Amino acid sequence: MSILERIQSSDDVKQLTPEELPVLCAEIRSELVQTVSRTGGHLASNLGAVELSVALHRVYNSKKDRIVFDVGHQCYVHKLLTGRREQFGSLRQFGGLSGFPKPYEAADDAFIAGHASNSVSVALGMARARSLQKQDYDVVAVIGDGAMTGGLSFEGLSNAAASGEPLLIILNDNSMSISHNVGGTDNLLQRMRFTPGYLRFKGVYRSVFEHMPKVYRFNHRVKERVKDLVLSDNIFTEMGMNYLGPVDGHDLQELETAIRLGRDMRVPVLLHVITQKGKGVFYAEKHPERYHGVGSFDPETGLLPPEKPSFSSCFGQSLCELAERDERIVAVTAAMASGTGLDGFAGAYPRRFFDVGIAEGHGVTMAAAMAKQGLLPVFAVYSSFLQRGYDMLLHDISIQGLHAVFAVDRAGLVGNDGETHNGCFDVNYLGAIPGMTLYCPASFRELRVMLEKAIFETEGPVALRYPRGGEGRYRDLHPEDEAILREGFDLTLVCYGTRVNDALDACDLLQAQGVSAELIKLGVLKPNAFPETLRSLEKTGRLLIAEDVCAAGCVGERLLAAAAARGLRLKASRLINVGDGIVPQGSVPELLREYGLDGEGIARAARSLLRGDEP
Amino acid sequence: MSILERIQSSDDVKQLTPEELPVLCAEIRSELVQTVSRTGGHLASNLGAVELSVALHRVYNSKKDRIVFDVGHQCYVHKLLTGRREQFGSLRQFGGLSGFPKPYEAADDAFIAGHASNSVSVALGMARARSLQKQDYDVVAVIGDGAMTGGLSFEGLSNAAASGEPLLIILNDNSMSISHNVGGTDNLLQRMRFTPGYLRFKGVYRSVFEHMPKVYRFNHRVKERVKDLVLSDNIFTEMGMNYLGPVDGHDLQELETAIRLGRDMRVPVLLHVITQKGKGVFYAEKHPERYHGVGSFDPETGLLPPEKPSFSSCFGQSLCELAERDERIVAVTAAMASGTGLDGFAGAYPRRFFDVGIAEGHGVTMAAAMAKQGLLPVFAVYSSFLQRGYDMLLHDISIQGLHAVFAVDRAGLVGNDGETHNGCFDVNYLGAIPGMTLYCPASFRELRVMLEKAIFETEGPVALRYPRGGEGRYRDLHPEDEAILREGFDLTLVCYGTRVNDALDACDLLQAQGVSAELIKLGVLKPNAFPETLRSLEKTGRLLIAEDVCAAGCVGERLLAAAAARGLRLKASRLINVGDGIVPQGSVPELLREYGLDGEGIARAARSLLRGDEP
Repeated sequence: MSILERIQSSDDVKQLTPEELPVLCAEIRSELVQTVSRTGGHLASNLGAVELSVALHRVYNSKKDRIVFDVGHQCYVHKLLTGRREQFGSLRQFGGLSGFPKPYEAADDAFIAGHASNSVSVALGMARARSLQKQDYDVVAVIGDGAMTGGLSFEGLSNAAASGEPLLIILNDNSMSISHNVGGTDNLLQRMRFTPGYLRFKGVYRSVFEHMPKVYRFNHRVKERVKDLVLSDNIFTEMGMNYLGPVDGHDLQELETAIRLGRDMRVPVLLHVITQKGKGVFYAEKHPERYHGVGSFDPETGLLPPEKPSFSSCFGQSLCELAERDERIVAVTAAMASGTGLDGFAGAYPRRFFDVGIAEGHGVTMAAAMAKQGLLPVFAVYSSFLQRGYDMLLHDISIQGLHAVFAVDRAGLVGNDGETHNGCFDVNYLGAIPGMTLYCPASFRELRVMLEKAIFETEGPVALRYPRGGEGRYRDLHPEDEAILREGFDLTLVCYGTRVNDALDACDLLQAQGVSAELIKLGVLKPNAFPETLRSLEKTGRLLIAEDVCAAGCVGERLLAAAAARGLRLKASRLINVGDGIVPQGSVPELLREYGLDGEGIARAARSLLRGDEP
Repeated sequence: MSILERIQSSDDVKQLTPEELPVLCAEIRSELVQTVSRTGGHLASNLGAVELSVALHRVYNSKKDRIVFDVGHQCYVHKLLTGRREQFGSLRQFGGLSGFPKPYEAADDAFIAGHASNSVSVALGMARARSLQKQDYDVVAVIGDGAMTGGLSFEGLSNAAASGEPLLIILNDNSMSISHNVGGTDNLLQRMRFTPGYLRFKGVYRSVFEHMPKVYRFNHRVKERVKDLVLSDNIFTEMGMNYLGPVDGHDLQELETAIRLGRDMRVPVLLHVITQKGKGVFYAEKHPERYHGVGSFDPETGLLPPEKPSFSSCFGQSLCELAERDERIVAVTAAMASGTGLDGFAGAYPRRFFDVGIAEGHGVTMAAAMAKQGLLPVFAVYSSFLQRGYDMLLHDISIQGLHAVFAVDRAGLVGNDGETHNGCFDVNYLGAIPGMTLYCPASFRELRVMLEKAIFETEGPVALRYPRGGEGRYRDLHPEDEAILREGFDLTLVCYGTRVNDALDACDLLQAQGVSAELIKLGVLKPNAFPETLRSLEKTGRLLIAEDVCAAGCVGERLLAAAAARGLRLKASRLINVGDGIVPQGSVPELLREYGLDGEGIARAARSLLRGDEP
């Protein structure tokens, strides 16, 4: 039996001897590589956080104390140590273990994570709740240097520093966010990494510990002495945080001692830990960005399967071509150059490429100002992360009617990243932005044409929403507002984006059963008064629409409202969408099946509609 | 002719002699007091920014250079100096001058403002656009210390510091935000105010200027010398910004010199200016928070009319009462303690009151964590500012189904603050948050009952939306999901919140004309399947709904969709709302009339509906 197999909780980790700990760490790394090479997931960040996670469980009890992971890319080790090793093979699969902290999975997971930079605010809220209720537990946040660039972190730190609440913020600094850090925050961390504090720290805590072996309580004088020695001036101390570090994030004993020290200071403390992303696995150490979020790969060599063409890569290529034609085009990304397909653009047009770091709000506002001054900014961003820029879309873009383009990647179902990453709200929130034009390409050819139209022919704010991954069977070009792809008379089937593939499957199934569906694909979701669709509904009297977005504000709702406003009496209608809940993880095909959005599900709904069943 | 009357542009300001400048400042202060005492507006912040604004126009040309005001509470002086003095009497009135910067008003207004903390991002975007297009203008942002606590500022500063772009950020530090600053950011500014830099600055720039009279260009050596002498270590230098200051914001010559210096350094510079809010007017100096945003008052004495009961004050009182009953209740605000009616709560329960500063995202996430740990957090926030917390509502609150209460003040039309402050999007964006319950009280009594229900009887996330100001003729208690207030058979008139007052007026007008309207008031906007309303529509066949929210995702759209889904054929329908545009400024009654949402407008729409007119 391996050491890892014996570990079920923080208590078990605490029982291990100093000799067993490095063995445990090696076993964990092996488990990470074996599983993630099969399931896909976040490898490099977890490899870098092995010792840190073990140290956390040496000091804290995750059942009682609250360990708040930021983003959650580094929570796998924590899961392996808290009774979820046996399920680890189901990582990121439908019905399986999540790749992010989930309180519903285990009491050891303190809070939700997925979107960057919430951990400090969460830790502060928890610390305040604890103190007000006179409860007895410790709160610690673990946040990467990338997430530290998000404004939410700053708001949290600023408030935490002034709170006086005992809480520990561990800055897991691997000098990378997802690709590489940008901006002033990284500059300052860069300098801090080389401050004398790093060397001095070892000496200090040892001298402190010599005087207070085992259980120790700092009195004020000792605290002050420690502070004087360890804490140098930096952005965190300027904000009023107490600062410890930097410490070596792969030296277990040093880590454990530092965390204990930070915990027992009973004030807001920031502990700066330096780790190496990908630590211990040669290919991940060499190319940590490549093994950040990864699909399946060869665990021995790290060999990745060749990349398939995707909407992201198609977008990136098209933007490069358009940028060559017009110098005003600039690209903006929020730490997602690779994910959004902008790597090529960044190489070809470095002066016109702006990676603002994890700072979506700033990305939107900066793009607004660029548009105001005559540039043609294109902000490529994941649908669920653009939610951070919602107010900026309304305030900085829409009120002035500025012409900025939003390339909204990962729209709709994203699959294995699960709850926090699905892009199921954009049709609602972008659809309500005054003046917004919302395109929805269903094929690479449509993406190219619509991107060009969005940049050069559309006024005001404009967004293109397209999914993760590639094309399906539909590879045609029907960029018009409403395209009738198949004519029919029994019912009107409406779809947009890559849902057209499932809709075509459904039409085939229905045709084989003698049902004639009129298939309409929407290329523009807004503005669109749906004249063709309404004409079709007058003919068929039955509406069926399939969309992978939330029910509130979905296109189906708008279509029904348009039909009613026109006094059209429908014999039957059915809106297939993801409802009012949160979409779980799973492969996209599994999720489509789950929500009745695959070809069979749509055909089933059509037959039910024709039978006159109650929805 | 006064000096102010002669000023039409930056050029005119530059022509003034040193002796004329203090006279101009006095004339401006007098104009501010005379006008704002009549129109209402932001007095104290503008009084504090008189010399700063004059100095900006001495150095820059606002037609060409871009002066970006943050929030815009301090832009009145700028407007007086740029050809808008004669219109100044129309400040904040329907069709009149805006109280915020508006590019459509004058080319001198560089960008929209209203929501805090966007100026650094805007300035950076503009500076980058300028450099890329090889244009020749300067960019300067003016931001208060309050707005500096917003995460968007941090994102902007971090990115600006690393950009190398020549741009100047002027921190207008009056050590107040709207009420008072909170958090670590203020701590550090506090310390910076007392750094030796303040005293040293005078000496430095004088010695610099002695060597380079009139037109000067810094060579590298001089720049470095200035930096060494003037720039001390602080949070801004830690981020990589070049720091100048602090300087006295009421010493015109010092200001002008410092701004010129910052402009000519050709790098990202932060200039720290210390001003006094309310400067020059005794009552505003004494109570700057009282004269921040103010209605009409006596210009001689500053005497304010007594405050009328409002939904805000009613909320504050009710929350105090409920908090006495249950210790778990805590209140959160984002620098709006007074505006949201929480002053009393803050006094009565200081340990349970959390003002997080201008940091709505953090407020939402902290509240989520408090809820997770067993407290009952109530976050009181203006509707349009909660937009900043949209992603946090989805990610931190909704996914975990946490029970936090959002008291959404200033919902719907807000009146004179105009475009940026209307709360016309919350029905859409809150309505799509999974699991959200959305109450809409129409009277103080309903607010009390619904707040209690929201806190103690509702599960998951819950919001109450209520307007600025007080009750109308409706003071009853019908907190149910759907209340039939009047029975009728010609048409179904639906409303919610204080729009019920106009709906009642409309019913009276219609009754006098022999039209029988069935009036339904919604108390809960979500979840609500509208069974009563649908029953009524089956009877009348005609739907009329009046709401002061945007068209996309409005309740009328959802009602039409529900009717269509049920196969109900409507003879006619009309949705009165604010459409797909941006609502301008004006008094609320004027705006209601403009959008056809007042009693007469609703009655007119009803008659048109009955005539069968096209909408």
